[in-house]
Amino acid sequence: MYIAMNRFKIVPGREKDFEKIWKERETHLDNVPGFIEFHLVKGCKEETHTLYASHSTWKSEDDFSNWTRSEAFRQAHRGAGQHSDVYLGHPVFEGFKVII
Amino acid sequence: MYIAMNRFKIVPGREKDFEKIWKERETHLDNVPGFIEFHLVKGCKEETHTLYASHSTWKSEDDFSNWTRSEAFRQAHRGAGQHSDVYLGHPVFEGFKVII
Repeated sequence: MYIAMNRFKIVPGREKDFEKIWKERETHLDNVPGFIEFHLVKGCKEETHTLYASHSTWKSEDDFSNWTRSEAFRQAHRGAGQHSDVYLGHPVFEGFKVII
Repeated sequence: MYIAMNRFKIVPGREKDFEKIWKERETHLDNVPGFIEFHLVKGCKEETHTLYASHSTWKSEDDFSNWTRSEAFRQAHRGAGQHSDVYLGHPVFEGFKVII
């Protein structure tokens, strides 16, 4: 199993706007091979930003990698440059292989 | 739902030792109220260390907080100071509230 997280720093005061973007977003994940589940999660609030992360679980790292090269991925990330005013910097990716 | 992650930096070459410690460890989590599941996950390998994280899922943040004050928590962390030679520095905690 594999967990893919993309960490986002959100401008203070724009948290609800960011959550709304994700709630209204079509992830196109349901029929992707190896996809298990998706969550948007909220981390700590710092002075400069609030941390969020997308958190998706996959049967394997290969399934995740295949998705990032797929048409479904391109569709899910159409218009990704919009709403750039809610973000502080670029998202930071972290992938985790499940050991236990 | 709530996800609790504790990030560990492991000395290069000691990854298998670290995984063995966790595989042999008794987490005492099975009967804890609100506990859903536990994983040990492996992140990226840097020049100075390999990133790992404990990754536990809970019904709520309160359930997690209650556990950290419980006898089960104390039992699970008995001898936590052992094996300190596999770690680079202290673990770093991050908690995430599930929004979607």
